[in-house]
Amino acid sequence: MLLDQIHQPEDLKRLSIPELEQLAGEIRQFLVEKLSVTGGHLSSNLGIVELTLALHTHYESPNDKFIFDVGHQAYVHKMLTGRKDRFDTLRKYKGLCGFVKRSESEHDVWEAGHSSTSLSAAMGMVLARDLKGEDYKVVAVIGDGALTGGMALEALNHIGHERKNVTIILNDNEMSIAPNVGALHNYLSKIRSDKHYRWAKEEVEHLLKRIPAIGGTLAKTAEKLKDSVKYLVMSGIWFEELGLTYIGPVDGHNLPLLLETLRQADKVEGPVIVHVVTTKGKGYSPAEQDSHAWHGASPYKIESGQMIKAVGHPLYTEVFGNTLIELAKLDPRIVAVTPAMPGGSGLLKFAKEFPNRMIDVGIAEQHAATLCAGMAVEGMKPVFAVYSTFMQRAYDQIVHDICRMNLNVAFAIDRAGFVGADGETHHGVYDIAFMRSIPNMVLMMPKDENELRHMMFTALKYDGGPIAYRYPRANGVGVPFDKELKEIPIGSWDTVREGDSAAVLAVGPMVQTALEAAELLSKEGVQLRVINARFIKPLDEAMLTQLGKEHIPIVTLEEGALQGGFGGAVLEYYAREAMDDLPIRTIGIPDYFVEHGSVKEQRKEVGLTADNVVAQVKSMLAVARPAKRQRA
Amino acid sequence: MLLDQIHQPEDLKRLSIPELEQLAGEIRQFLVEKLSVTGGHLSSNLGIVELTLALHTHYESPNDKFIFDVGHQAYVHKMLTGRKDRFDTLRKYKGLCGFVKRSESEHDVWEAGHSSTSLSAAMGMVLARDLKGEDYKVVAVIGDGALTGGMALEALNHIGHERKNVTIILNDNEMSIAPNVGALHNYLSKIRSDKHYRWAKEEVEHLLKRIPAIGGTLAKTAEKLKDSVKYLVMSGIWFEELGLTYIGPVDGHNLPLLLETLRQADKVEGPVIVHVVTTKGKGYSPAEQDSHAWHGASPYKIESGQMIKAVGHPLYTEVFGNTLIELAKLDPRIVAVTPAMPGGSGLLKFAKEFPNRMIDVGIAEQHAATLCAGMAVEGMKPVFAVYSTFMQRAYDQIVHDICRMNLNVAFAIDRAGFVGADGETHHGVYDIAFMRSIPNMVLMMPKDENELRHMMFTALKYDGGPIAYRYPRANGVGVPFDKELKEIPIGSWDTVREGDSAAVLAVGPMVQTALEAAELLSKEGVQLRVINARFIKPLDEAMLTQLGKEHIPIVTLEEGALQGGFGGAVLEYYAREAMDDLPIRTIGIPDYFVEHGSVKEQRKEVGLTADNVVAQVKSMLAVARPAKRQRA
Repeated sequence: MLLDQIHQPEDLKRLSIPELEQLAGEIRQFLVEKLSVTGGHLSSNLGIVELTLALHTHYESPNDKFIFDVGHQAYVHKMLTGRKDRFDTLRKYKGLCGFVKRSESEHDVWEAGHSSTSLSAAMGMVLARDLKGEDYKVVAVIGDGALTGGMALEALNHIGHERKNVTIILNDNEMSIAPNVGALHNYLSKIRSDKHYRWAKEEVEHLLKRIPAIGGTLAKTAEKLKDSVKYLVMSGIWFEELGLTYIGPVDGHNLPLLLETLRQADKVEGPVIVHVVTTKGKGYSPAEQDSHAWHGASPYKIESGQMIKAVGHPLYTEVFGNTLIELAKLDPRIVAVTPAMPGGSGLLKFAKEFPNRMIDVGIAEQHAATLCAGMAVEGMKPVFAVYSTFMQRAYDQIVHDICRMNLNVAFAIDRAGFVGADGETHHGVYDIAFMRSIPNMVLMMPKDENELRHMMFTALKYDGGPIAYRYPRANGVGVPFDKELKEIPIGSWDTVREGDSAAVLAVGPMVQTALEAAELLSKEGVQLRVINARFIKPLDEAMLTQLGKEHIPIVTLEEGALQGGFGGAVLEYYAREAMDDLPIRTIGIPDYFVEHGSVKEQRKEVGLTADNVVAQVKSMLAVARPAKRQRA
Repeated sequence: MLLDQIHQPEDLKRLSIPELEQLAGEIRQFLVEKLSVTGGHLSSNLGIVELTLALHTHYESPNDKFIFDVGHQAYVHKMLTGRKDRFDTLRKYKGLCGFVKRSESEHDVWEAGHSSTSLSAAMGMVLARDLKGEDYKVVAVIGDGALTGGMALEALNHIGHERKNVTIILNDNEMSIAPNVGALHNYLSKIRSDKHYRWAKEEVEHLLKRIPAIGGTLAKTAEKLKDSVKYLVMSGIWFEELGLTYIGPVDGHNLPLLLETLRQADKVEGPVIVHVVTTKGKGYSPAEQDSHAWHGASPYKIESGQMIKAVGHPLYTEVFGNTLIELAKLDPRIVAVTPAMPGGSGLLKFAKEFPNRMIDVGIAEQHAATLCAGMAVEGMKPVFAVYSTFMQRAYDQIVHDICRMNLNVAFAIDRAGFVGADGETHHGVYDIAFMRSIPNMVLMMPKDENELRHMMFTALKYDGGPIAYRYPRANGVGVPFDKELKEIPIGSWDTVREGDSAAVLAVGPMVQTALEAAELLSKEGVQLRVINARFIKPLDEAMLTQLGKEHIPIVTLEEGALQGGFGGAVLEYYAREAMDDLPIRTIGIPDYFVEHGSVKEQRKEVGLTADNVVAQVKSMLAVARPAKRQRA
């Protein structure tokens, strides 16, 4: 095995082309085997094997800087930089991270889980390099899907303007996670396949050679034409017009060609974009045939390519997708909008049923949000289906375009709370804090999948402005569905277990945790009331006031950042209402980024457990309190 | 006066071209006169007079929808839609809004104060229109500066893909607020002025007509060439490649040409972009000569063009700019980054002094933030100078790229708090809430301009990760500068007035308000301690604990959203530390969008006044409280 001899990038430089090609095969075999056990981002990594080998053979990492856009396609990079022995722990608690991770290796210079950041990061490193008078290469590797994210386009605009030396590898596999959409994607497809371009490349030069022979005025004009036709010859005119030199398209699985192309790119003065065409899932036929399904793979059987899916209740995501179809049948104003996540957001069936009412805008959360605002202005009921973590990209649009104009946009916030193996770049733990501080926003979270359906119905019926429901990356709890969908009164909470010793205000899946805690406490004679705080905003002020009058200890429980979170909202309410003397504890996610692992491990790490609820309640009950005091 | 006869767009349709041209002159005179008293966005509105007349003459508003990107260039639109009698109240409290405002008129279909939203909004309205089976025109008017904002580029990518009927007017005045930068700007300049393009437009057709006469194989090949050269003929190939039809460039002050061009645009199937070249400040020579200075004009003398600036202490913005020069001399790692606001952010002098260390990325807050992250990775000390309200665009980049990797990026957050006349789109009132919920962030606000300097020095010396200082759109308070810059211990507050009856924790300019309240209260025998809570995060926990032990009433005072704000942070701290029985009131901005007016009026409206502090303190002191209770 050549692979066993590769411990650092230098080891590659001794290898011949046939040996590198053999190594590519070994790497694929390694990935297919390891990921069959751990799961992980298989297809994008199989697609980038030769490209990663070429990069590490041609450049000198870590002196030269590699920036992987969305760092999930860096498995090969990790293998070549001394980490292949840790692949058994991939994406596990305290194990190898599924993304580029600076703390893991000096070869990891830039971390990302969100897309489209690599060009900005690269430009920052280039500016720093030139200001310091240093001399190294900065190489960004970006997919065709990520390239259409607004910040990548902003960066291109800046890079083309500054004309500094930077290499952009456009890894074009015709996919982000779902098949790509968008005009720029269409343009790249044209480059890859259009006869016009092929013809231009092959024949224009030939034609030009003959024109001067025609003589006379025409020849003179033809000289001018020649200057102009150079735009034609270069198929990447869209990039050339922005000030970048375009090289490509190049077969991304042809190692000698890749190495030669990188040598060419080095000779270019100013920014260069190398258009590399790769196949996602390359070398493992199940993944090649359905790279979408194999983007984030569960463990699988290698021979059959059959993924081993955990058996469980339907995912919240599926309940969302199915219910949206029901609602869209009721109301023609519903339109679903997704930023490149039709599958992840459970909208594939919806798209089949209502192709005209399903808008996939590509990786473009900002545009998606304001597009919804535009539709709402014209009386539609857009549903922006988005992961909590990616919604962060649309924060300003939510404030400025949706909430400020108080438009009827619904937010279906998936992956709210911890997300497990994807880790710190993907947790949905800030949306409570940032959404509740925006005027006009209504924010809900259901305790189970049945309640999610009622919330979706409530959002449809609501005409007071923006309304959001957030739900976890998880299976539902297995409750039956009510036959009829009903509107939940805005701002109303629900007491799911009575008790008069103390109360817990729990959000979403934390209601289950609270019920467990109540069970434990009841064995010790403490009766914990469990309240389903299904509205994070507005609060159920009547219930809060009532609780304040009862003067029992209160615990708030949420899977979100404590800073500015739901617990803070409760405290703010009591301060405003001058109820100063209430014992309240807030349980949530403390002020640091929680790494990858299972959701259970993550919850345990931060104290989102029944045991912690029990401990907090008992600590408050242990304090001798004066009688309820007189109010002015 | 023709202007007196125009009460609605229909009135324009009766006018001849010469009459419209006369009207344009009258409109300019009106604007120059009115704004000489009220101030306002003069130069962009003078530039768009003929274009607005052409739009309202050609289309049928409000049936057809006009979407003005950054609605500050809609003054002419307001005049033509029945609001010219209200211009004396422009940008004043309860007066005419300086931006497009839906509540003012049915002709105002889309509001914006932030740039680059118009294409997404237009596309949303187009999708709604087509789903509803209706038939009206949707016309977005966007500047060349706004076009490079990431969300506008995301929208272009979507618009070119969907190929639905929508008209984009590219109002190219070579400026956003500052002179534009960026590759796309360079491209537009080339279209406007490059001989190559002019030649292509005029001569290629002529050449092509002759080639087929040459006969033989060449003629056949030439046919193919003809297909290809069509790309050349159309100067807007960058847009054409994205799937849009490009028309232009067109002189934006030539009314007959504009009207003819709009007729042409109507005939295009699919999206069309009309490239209109205008001159900012057109018709008023002081504004034409320095459209940058006249972007947002103060009242001025019409004859001399001399602006009447309020005399006062140096602006915080100026102190920031000057101090950054001092620091940059001390430390070569400092680089200033601005998203198209070099003047507004006080960086013009810095740019002269350190041209290589001043990066203007254009309207591109996302890119700017992550560019800073890239520089920080390579050991620089970037300073992201940004208005609070525009920083909202970079929220995800701050979370995912800067705080998560804990990089040494400094944020100079200008226009924090109320901004006055620009109103609800521009207030900087959410940054406390959204910044403090992000791990690793340090957030400061100075009580005066001298303290700002120390905070800037502190940020330079700090190597622990991201650090931000926010300051208001205001003159400093006039304090002298300390001779030496000093580091303020991270998380330390400062007691600026002693007192043992109650305490106020005040942020930034609110320290002055708190001191006024203390003065008022002392006359009634109440001694209010005034604490300069100069760190919003981390809190001064030692001081909070001490206050908790003293058990005196506490008021928090901040010019920011109450939901999730500084006051909430204080409440969260005491809940965490189990100090349950403290009387605390939080004063800040309640949960709605505050309209335009003076900052003083805005503060009064929400209770950010000394009187309100006095009232809150007195209400707490009036309550009989039990003795401090025993802790467990």
